[in-house]
Amino acid sequence: MYGEWLERVRQEGPLVHNITNYVAMQIAANTLLAAGASPVMAHAAEEVEEMAAAAGALVLNIGTLEPAWVDAMELAQASAARHGVPVVLDPVGVGATRYRTEVAARLLSIHPPLVIRGNAAEVAVLTGGTGIVRGVDAHSGGLPVDEAASLARRLAGVVAATGPVDIVTDGRRTARIENGDPWLTRVTATGCSLSALVGAFVAVANREPRQDDTLLAVIASLVSFEVAAEQARAVAHGPGTFHAALLDALYHLRPADVDSAARVSWI
Amino acid sequence: MYGEWLERVRQEGPLVHNITNYVAMQIAANTLLAAGASPVMAHAAEEVEEMAAAAGALVLNIGTLEPAWVDAMELAQASAARHGVPVVLDPVGVGATRYRTEVAARLLSIHPPLVIRGNAAEVAVLTGGTGIVRGVDAHSGGLPVDEAASLARRLAGVVAATGPVDIVTDGRRTARIENGDPWLTRVTATGCSLSALVGAFVAVANREPRQDDTLLAVIASLVSFEVAAEQARAVAHGPGTFHAALLDALYHLRPADVDSAARVSWI
Amino acid sequence: MYGEWLERVRQEGPLVHNITNYVAMQIAANTLLAAGASPVMAHAAEEVEEMAAAAGALVLNIGTLEPAWVDAMELAQASAARHGVPVVLDPVGVGATRYRTEVAARLLSIHPPLVIRGNAAEVAVLTGGTGIVRGVDAHSGGLPVDEAASLARRLAGVVAATGPVDIVTDGRRTARIENGDPWLTRVTATGCSLSALVGAFVAVANREPRQDDTLLAVIASLVSFEVAAEQARAVAHGPGTFHAALLDALYHLRPADVDSAARVSWI
Repeated sequence: MYGEWLERVRQEGPLVHNITNYVAMQIAANTLLAAGASPVMAHAAEEVEEMAAAAGALVLNIGTLEPAWVDAMELAQASAARHGVPVVLDPVGVGATRYRTEVAARLLSIHPPLVIRGNAAEVAVLTGGTGIVRGVDAHSGGLPVDEAASLARRLAGVVAATGPVDIVTDGRRTARIENGDPWLTRVTATGCSLSALVGAFVAVANREPRQDDTLLAVIASLVSFEVAAEQARAVAHGPGTFHAALLDALYHLRPADVDSAARVSWI
Repeated sequence: MYGEWLERVRQEGPLVHNITNYVAMQIAANTLLAAGASPVMAHAAEEVEEMAAAAGALVLNIGTLEPAWVDAMELAQASAARHGVPVVLDPVGVGATRYRTEVAARLLSIHPPLVIRGNAAEVAVLTGGTGIVRGVDAHSGGLPVDEAASLARRLAGVVAATGPVDIVTDGRRTARIENGDPWLTRVTATGCSLSALVGAFVAVANREPRQDDTLLAVIASLVSFEVAAEQARAVAHGPGTFHAALLDALYHLRPADVDSAARVSWI
Repeated sequence: MYGEWLERVRQEGPLVHNITNYVAMQIAANTLLAAGASPVMAHAAEEVEEMAAAAGALVLNIGTLEPAWVDAMELAQASAARHGVPVVLDPVGVGATRYRTEVAARLLSIHPPLVIRGNAAEVAVLTGGTGIVRGVDAHSGGLPVDEAASLARRLAGVVAATGPVDIVTDGRRTARIENGDPWLTRVTATGCSLSALVGAFVAVANREPRQDDTLLAVIASLVSFEVAAEQARAVAHGPGTFHAALLDALYHLRPADVDSAARVSWI
C-alpha cells in the first residue's frame, strides 16, 4: 500500500525543485537520488519561476534563510501556484528567532503550501502554540495532534509533525507513525531530507489530484524514509556510517518491506 | 600513460580555485583532496582575482548561480586570463532555464574557458543544439561528437561530454571513454566533482602548455575518476557507501591500474 | 581529566551557533551532533543577534566569506559580547588574500574572540608573522609557540594552532598535543569541524568562567577530536570511510579512552 508510492516515485522519477538550506543541500539531493527522484537546487530570482514551473514539486526550507532567498521562495511559490505544482514547506527553526517566524508566516499567507513537514514544536509555533524551539532542534511536550489538524484545515492540505512518533493529518483524518530510529537526530538535515522526499511523493500524487492521495503520499514518504532508517541502523556503527547506510537502504528499499515494516495507525 | 598524470597531480599538489555550487562544495573539495590536489573555495568579488591568480587552475560551476556569483566568476576568469591560469567550466543545467543559458553564454564570450566538462545535453545546448535539459539531469539522444568538436574549436580548447560513454575532444582528435559506473548518477555532484578534478589535471598540464597535453590531461582525469568509481562499486552496498568508497578508491588508485583499466578509443 | 569535558558536553548538549563556510556546514553540524551538542547555522543580519544570544557559543569561520556575511559576523559578535556568550574564530585562509586578512583583523578588533583555532601559518599571519598561506592549506616552518602565546595575551583568551603537533596556549601556560592522524588533512573541513567542536566545549566551560577552564576545555576538545580520528583511522579504508568513521568514533568515544590516549605535554 505505502510501498506502491515508493515504486511510483522510482518509475516516474519526478523532478523536485528545492530552495533549501546550505547544510541540507547535499544530503537532500542524495536522498532524492537514492529514492529514484531527480533533485534540482536553484535559488536565484532570475530562474526560480521557470524552474518551479518545470518541476513536479517545489520544496521550500528556511533553515539558513536570508532576504534574497525568501523573495525567491515567494516567486517560486507563485509560479508553482500558477502551474499547479505542489509545494512543501519545511519551517526549520521557526520560533527560534522573530525573523524565522515572520518568514514562515509570509510563506503561509498568499500561496499556502500543500504540505508542511516540521517537528512537533515547529508545527505548534505555526499554529500560535507553545512549542519551545531552541536553535533548529525543537522540543515539545506532547503530540501536536490538534495543532496539526487545525493547520492542515487552514492550508486545505496536509501537515506532518515528525519526531519519535509522527503525526500526519489532512485535518479530517490523522495517522500516527512509529517508524524511525533515534540516530536520525544525530545526523544533520535528516528532517530536511525527509521534506525533500515528501516533495517527490507529492509530485507523484499530484498527477491525480485528490486530497486523500496527498495524505497517503505523505504517509508513504515518511514510512519509506523511516523504514530505511531502521534498516540502516541494523548495519551502521554510528551516525557517520548510519548516514551512508540510510542512502543505501533507501536505494534498495523493497516496496513489500515498506508495507510489512510500516507502523501506521489512525487516530 | 594516463596514470602518469595522476602521479603528477599527487606530486605537484596543485591548488584548484573553485567557484562552484552549494551542493558540490564539500564533495568537490574531498575529491580534490583524495586525488592529492589542494582545493580552495572563494566567491567574493573582493578576493577572487587574487585567489585565481594564485591557483593552478580555476573551476567555474553554475549549478546554483546568482548574479553576484556570476560577476565574481567573470572577475576570476579575467584574472586567470591575465595570469595564464587555465579555466574549466561546468555548465550545470544550461538550457534548463533562460538565466543559466545566458550566464553560460557570458562565461564563454570574453575569456573562454580552456576546458568545458558537461553532460551530453549541456554540451549540445552550448552549441545551439537540441539537448533536452530537465533540471540538472540531462538526457540526450546520441553522443554529441560533432557538437563537442565544434565547441572545442571555438574555444581553442577541450570539451568533455560525459555520460555512460564520454567524448573528449580538442576539435581535431576525439577520444571515447567507456569507464565509470551507473551509480555515479545516483550520487549528487559527481559530475561537479569530476570537473574540479579536471582542474587539478589541467593545472599540471599547464606547466608545459601544449594543447595536446590538455587533451590528454582531461582524458586522464576522467579515466582516473571513473576507474576509481569502478573499484568503489565493487565494495559499496549502495549510493551512500559508494560515495565514501569512491574517495577511498581515488586516494589509493594506482597509476598502473588506471592504465590497465582504461577503456579509451580514438574516433 | 579531558574526558570529563566530553562527558559534560554530552550531558549539557550546548547550542552552538555557527556562521561558517559552505564547505564545512554539513560536516561541522554532524561533528557537533556526534559529540552530543546541538548545532544551528544562521547568517542573516535579521536573526544572528537573537540566535547568538540564545547560544552557548558562537563560532565564526571565514572560509567562504563575503561582505554581508562579515557584517552578520560582527553583529553576532557584538550580541555575543552583550550576552556573555563565548566566541571562537577560525581564520580560514587568512593571508591567502588581502580581503581575508582585513576581515580577520576586523573580527579581532572590537569584540575579540575568546578562542582562535587555526593552523600554524594562520596563527602566524594573525600575529604579523611569516606563515605561508596557499589557498586554505597552510604550511609553516616550526611550531608557532611564541606567536600563539602573544596572540592569546592580546585576546586575553586562548589560541590553538593545530597541525601534526598542536599548540594551545592562554599566553601563560602552553600545551603541546600530539594526537590525530594525517588523514585529517585528506578530508575537507576537518579543521572547521574542530573549531565548531571547540565551541561546544567552551560553551560548557563558560558556565564557570575561569580562564583556566577555557584553556582546559580547548585542549579537551582537540584531544577528543583527535583521539576519535585515531580510532577512525584504525577501521577506515581511505579518506571517504575515514570521514564517516570519525563521526562514529566521536559518538562512541569513551571519556576514559580520551584520557588514556591523550598525548598532552606542557611546554
